[in-house]
Amino acid sequence: MRTGRVSPAAPGTFADDQVPLHLLRTRAFNQRWAEQPLDVIPLTAADPDFAVAPCIRERLVRWCSEGVMSYGPPLGLPAFREAVAAWMQGTRGLRCGPADVLATDGAASAMATVARASLQPGDEVLIPDPVDFLFRHAVERAGAVAVPVALHRGACRDDAAMAIAQLKRHLGSRSRMLWLCNPHNPLGLVPARAWLEAVVHWAIGHGLRVLSDEVWSDIVYAPHRHTSAATLSPEAARQVVMVYGFSKGFGLAGLRIGCIVCADPAWLRRMAQAAEAESTVGGAATLSQVAAVAAMEDGGDWLRGFVEHLRAQRDLTAMRIARWPGVQVAAPQGTFVMFPRIDAIDADAERLCTRLLAEARVALVPGSPRWFGPGARGHLRLCFATSRGLLERALDRLDTVLLRS
Amino acid sequence: MRTGRVSPAAPGTFADDQVPLHLLRTRAFNQRWAEQPLDVIPLTAADPDFAVAPCIRERLVRWCSEGVMSYGPPLGLPAFREAVAAWMQGTRGLRCGPADVLATDGAASAMATVARASLQPGDEVLIPDPVDFLFRHAVERAGAVAVPVALHRGACRDDAAMAIAQLKRHLGSRSRMLWLCNPHNPLGLVPARAWLEAVVHWAIGHGLRVLSDEVWSDIVYAPHRHTSAATLSPEAARQVVMVYGFSKGFGLAGLRIGCIVCADPAWLRRMAQAAEAESTVGGAATLSQVAAVAAMEDGGDWLRGFVEHLRAQRDLTAMRIARWPGVQVAAPQGTFVMFPRIDAIDADAERLCTRLLAEARVALVPGSPRWFGPGARGHLRLCFATSRGLLERALDRLDTVLLRS
Repeated sequence: MRTGRVSPAAPGTFADDQVPLHLLRTRAFNQRWAEQPLDVIPLTAADPDFAVAPCIRERLVRWCSEGVMSYGPPLGLPAFREAVAAWMQGTRGLRCGPADVLATDGAASAMATVARASLQPGDEVLIPDPVDFLFRHAVERAGAVAVPVALHRGACRDDAAMAIAQLKRHLGSRSRMLWLCNPHNPLGLVPARAWLEAVVHWAIGHGLRVLSDEVWSDIVYAPHRHTSAATLSPEAARQVVMVYGFSKGFGLAGLRIGCIVCADPAWLRRMAQAAEAESTVGGAATLSQVAAVAAMEDGGDWLRGFVEHLRAQRDLTAMRIARWPGVQVAAPQGTFVMFPRIDAIDADAERLCTRLLAEARVALVPGSPRWFGPGARGHLRLCFATSRGLLERALDRLDTVLLRS
Repeated sequence: MRTGRVSPAAPGTFADDQVPLHLLRTRAFNQRWAEQPLDVIPLTAADPDFAVAPCIRERLVRWCSEGVMSYGPPLGLPAFREAVAAWMQGTRGLRCGPADVLATDGAASAMATVARASLQPGDEVLIPDPVDFLFRHAVERAGAVAVPVALHRGACRDDAAMAIAQLKRHLGSRSRMLWLCNPHNPLGLVPARAWLEAVVHWAIGHGLRVLSDEVWSDIVYAPHRHTSAATLSPEAARQVVMVYGFSKGFGLAGLRIGCIVCADPAWLRRMAQAAEAESTVGGAATLSQVAAVAAMEDGGDWLRGFVEHLRAQRDLTAMRIARWPGVQVAAPQGTFVMFPRIDAIDADAERLCTRLLAEARVALVPGSPRWFGPGARGHLRLCFATSRGLLERALDRLDTVLLRS
């Protein structure tokens, strides 16, 4: 492993020796270290290889030492709901209060809750294609129909009129919602404000409510800027529900903590019912909420350092992948995943991933329709939220297979 | 407050000065300290007033200091599933392995999962009356019908033939399951092995599967002994699903951690699907699992001390309540709740609780049909999992109202 080439922006914090491999090998699941042979480097699930911010650890240690683990309130700890409201105001200018916040056990759970509370069987939801499988999954589990739209393909990425033309082609009498992923996983796109404004207002104008999945919104690379859909207009504030989580920016995937933010009290009430919060069947663990509060209150500096580190990781990854023969890659504007088109090497991404695992000992996620929708074919996804040394080692290994192809 | 009269069995650990009121006032919700006026003593939700066992705090502190909060595996951490299997074997002779265990975010969530995985719309489930509202709630949310049976009324408590006669009266062509609460909340009953054997085998003989809610099974007072339904016979092992949790014996309600134990692999697989574990929509937080592992591995001595303390609390509470005019009370055989019949004082338990809150400044749970089914009318529920001093103070206050009635 090449060491000593850490991100200049945060010396030490994200260095190679800060990747606690001995812990990851027993604690990092979901296709990562704990589920791979010892010699494999997993760049699979979108989960950082670093311990969480010291401020989160300290807050958790204090709370755990004190030892009171009693029932939390159904909608979330007051401190959690207040911290989310302040965080959303401070980081993206969203005007909201604690009463607009519902704590959920993760962003995936939040999406399923929105679907159950907002959709009837047979309702249709316009979703981007490709996009994370949870979009289709949550819609279908609620008995509704996910209608994939190539919302970000080609010129649609920058041209809202073209994106809207795509949406129009799929709008039907049963269309009820538009679900957006912003920043977009796996494409890494951060829609410009004007694009988002046009698309969201088109949807609202056609009677659609909007789910805005902003779980990635803390990982955005300048000059790109995240626009939170509910901030676009007073009308958007009423018709948009935001789903948010702490897995990506703060590495809390295992704690299962996220939230729903929604300025429409009746809608939020329906979502609390769908989340089964009052009955205690559903809800978020108090300790997980405490971790999230620490992240929001004290984790800003750590987060900035993490994004700086990731920017260097992104640049390296894009540069190295661009050398693979015939492969097209765009450096993501947000997220810590890259989604190169690799069909010039092998039209079957699953087969290519199997080969790369066997020959390069690097695990990647194939762009299978199952994971990202039909529009993902011919791509693979790579997570670069690791140290510089580990990333270089993985890329070196991939080169030995792909540059000799 | 009278101090210095702590349980002789565990001097110090459950003394008055071990109730961290300053923390409970901001952290104990669900009708408890954080939701009551400062001068009210809440004997409401079944949640202890003590910090969790030191071994749990220490394990959590260590894990939090290390800081890796990555995704856990869908069905639960290997260490959690192994610890549950060993715990069930050691504490109740249940032969099971890690593969029989599904981690859930609490026992309430586990019951809802069993219902979704095991019932079709219109199916009927025989449930005890009275019993915790979650029984009816989980059944109905799955589209099935809860059929209340006075399974523990009068002589049925000890006479299995009479209990079975009650069940027979409610058995129909759509009956699919029998759900048992053992130990029983709110009655505090711990069915004898022979009673349980007769009832469970009657159910299995009539083609019913059995859900055994054993969330209270760590709180049982000798000479009574908990029998886990799945241990009754090889047939019972296949037809019984156990729901278990860590809120009662170990005070982890806020961490939302429980499990399903089931020896039928196909049934457990359906439950994992119904829990949405694979998709990450559902699941238990890793940190919460870590707390439960510490409880099972190292918490046995603490638990024994806790039960000793509770036995003294129970005896005091039963003796004191028996003095209230016309009130009937049985000392519970298990659980840390008491369920006196108070209709001699006021036939309307909600009204009585409102009055006791106003005049005695003690909060209790009325035996409303909403909380415990129609069979709960004329009762109220009191939780005695606090210190001796706090309990005496609450009982003194209740006396001033009820003994002058």
